[in-house]
Amino acid sequence: MVQIPKEPAPPSPLQRSVPTSADVARLAGVSRATVSYVLNNTSAVRISEPTRRRVHEAAKELGYVPHAAARSLRAGHSRLVLMPTPNVPIGPLYSQFINEIQWALSRLDYTVVQHGGIGLRGDDAARAWAELRPVAVIVPGVGLGPQGVAVLKRSGAKAVVTLTPEPVEGAHALILDHAGVGHSAGRHLVERGRRRIGVVVPEEPGFGVFSQPRLAGVRRAVQGTDATVTELPLAYDEAAAARLARDWRSLGLDAVFAYNDEYAMLVMRALQDEGVGVPGETAVVGADDLMLGRLLRPRLSTVHLELPSGRHLAELVDRVVRDPASVPTTHDVLGARIVHRESS
Amino acid sequence: MVQIPKEPAPPSPLQRSVPTSADVARLAGVSRATVSYVLNNTSAVRISEPTRRRVHEAAKELGYVPHAAARSLRAGHSRLVLMPTPNVPIGPLYSQFINEIQWALSRLDYTVVQHGGIGLRGDDAARAWAELRPVAVIVPGVGLGPQGVAVLKRSGAKAVVTLTPEPVEGAHALILDHAGVGHSAGRHLVERGRRRIGVVVPEEPGFGVFSQPRLAGVRRAVQGTDATVTELPLAYDEAAAARLARDWRSLGLDAVFAYNDEYAMLVMRALQDEGVGVPGETAVVGADDLMLGRLLRPRLSTVHLELPSGRHLAELVDRVVRDPASVPTTHDVLGARIVHRESS
Repeated sequence: MVQIPKEPAPPSPLQRSVPTSADVARLAGVSRATVSYVLNNTSAVRISEPTRRRVHEAAKELGYVPHAAARSLRAGHSRLVLMPTPNVPIGPLYSQFINEIQWALSRLDYTVVQHGGIGLRGDDAARAWAELRPVAVIVPGVGLGPQGVAVLKRSGAKAVVTLTPEPVEGAHALILDHAGVGHSAGRHLVERGRRRIGVVVPEEPGFGVFSQPRLAGVRRAVQGTDATVTELPLAYDEAAAARLARDWRSLGLDAVFAYNDEYAMLVMRALQDEGVGVPGETAVVGADDLMLGRLLRPRLSTVHLELPSGRHLAELVDRVVRDPASVPTTHDVLGARIVHRESS
Repeated sequence: MVQIPKEPAPPSPLQRSVPTSADVARLAGVSRATVSYVLNNTSAVRISEPTRRRVHEAAKELGYVPHAAARSLRAGHSRLVLMPTPNVPIGPLYSQFINEIQWALSRLDYTVVQHGGIGLRGDDAARAWAELRPVAVIVPGVGLGPQGVAVLKRSGAKAVVTLTPEPVEGAHALILDHAGVGHSAGRHLVERGRRRIGVVVPEEPGFGVFSQPRLAGVRRAVQGTDATVTELPLAYDEAAAARLARDWRSLGLDAVFAYNDEYAMLVMRALQDEGVGVPGETAVVGADDLMLGRLLRPRLSTVHLELPSGRHLAELVDRVVRDPASVPTTHDVLGARIVHRESS
């Protein structure tokens, strides 16, 4: 019941429609080993060109596709790289980053799948990922703990790489230093002479892991100055922004770092509708450097984020897969620099 | 070489670190069949509560995670649903839709993975997907042909569902009628008295499958009127939009349907910077009904899209998996209605 059966004996076409490598071997008049050598492009074994051609033609005629899982079971490891999808909405920046990683890993002959760990958290999620027996897991977000890393490694993952603000024991860490984003914005505002800085913190669940370090970064930037920082929780919603704008003058703020460009657009519109001058009365800074910020009037100042290149990350994954015993490394990878436009 | 080996005999802990169901059986003092019954929650076999507990405790102690692929090989089918990631940037609307599908399918005990078929097209992509032996494939985009559907089915996929403007032979089709989106925009503009309608068509690769039906929908909407339609290819880029705006008056257009809200924002900004009055001289309509359209001044008119519910799609997938012989069905699922604001 629990044993993995051998592939069953060749059935008649009526019984079974999924073609096997045995069917290919029979049609090509070669051994199953030869089929395997040819279709897996094994270079260790010399096989004549006509035989190769016969195998490929037979596979094509039968519509035979190798079975990744069976191949993994035979080889003892897979080429599957698993990337959980983050729990927060994915912006254009991150979406391009994922594309780059997939492209770079597929050129190194890995298959990348994204897994939506919806409803699963932390180490439960790790167990669900482990069932797919990936050779590597790239975790873009928080929640995975040392136990989850251990579960993945015990299930055969050779590389676990996290993209988080803090390293996780046992995993290679690419540190996305969101505090640096807040620090760039805060320092810029202080340098522009602002002294009472509001920091918008999205109320939607899942953002805290990014928004709290950004807030902390602004606080760090004002240390040693007479500037103050006020946390402003806000839902991504016109009515909430209008309420905030209505209370704006009683808050006595002269600047706002609005988490990202989309929140900045929301807040700037509400302030303008309320008659608060931007940047005269209040400076506004976003983050992400999206196109929309350039289309606003005044043009939006923003923090440009530099994510690591997909190729860089793919090469790290491949290196660790080849040398899984290597000591987990930590790299700071998120660059942040202010783009000063008209709103600050 | 090509045969799938049985799980090897229990090795010593030093030799092998991935725990197997045999290890769990030994520690719990039960048979491997019992381990399988308990961990797969088989209801057909009665197993006492103390035994269940012993198995769960042993699995936990050893860090044993079932192997999805091995289980699939035993069962002859997987619970894996594969969704290729589309070739075009994913907007917030679509991203929420994918989340819903994943959530709904995971409640039906499927595992959903997204596969970035980057660099692969059409039936080559289908072969790469087939290697993972999914039980169902949901294809959100074009390129898959009848041959690709056949490859997937031969490899064990019981349900192939496409989300495309046209049905594909052999697959169940949820028809996203993008012509309807253009038709809503075109009819609205004609009803508002506009007679020379420009239609922005993104120049970026991959958009044609959506933009061409939208253009055709506008053309259909003006049939029988004296209105004309002019195709306006445009890159998502400020300089390109500025060039279009500079030539605007010589084009003699009094309205533009700008593909989606983001292009509409780009075009409206360029027209306003050039001194073209919106909506006075030129009406602007987008599509997608994103928040940003409400934040623009004038507020952006748009076409609201109604995607099918994730639950609806998940139930369709499950129904077809249970009855794979069912005749492929075709459903129109994209609702489109104009949201009239200030820009038109």
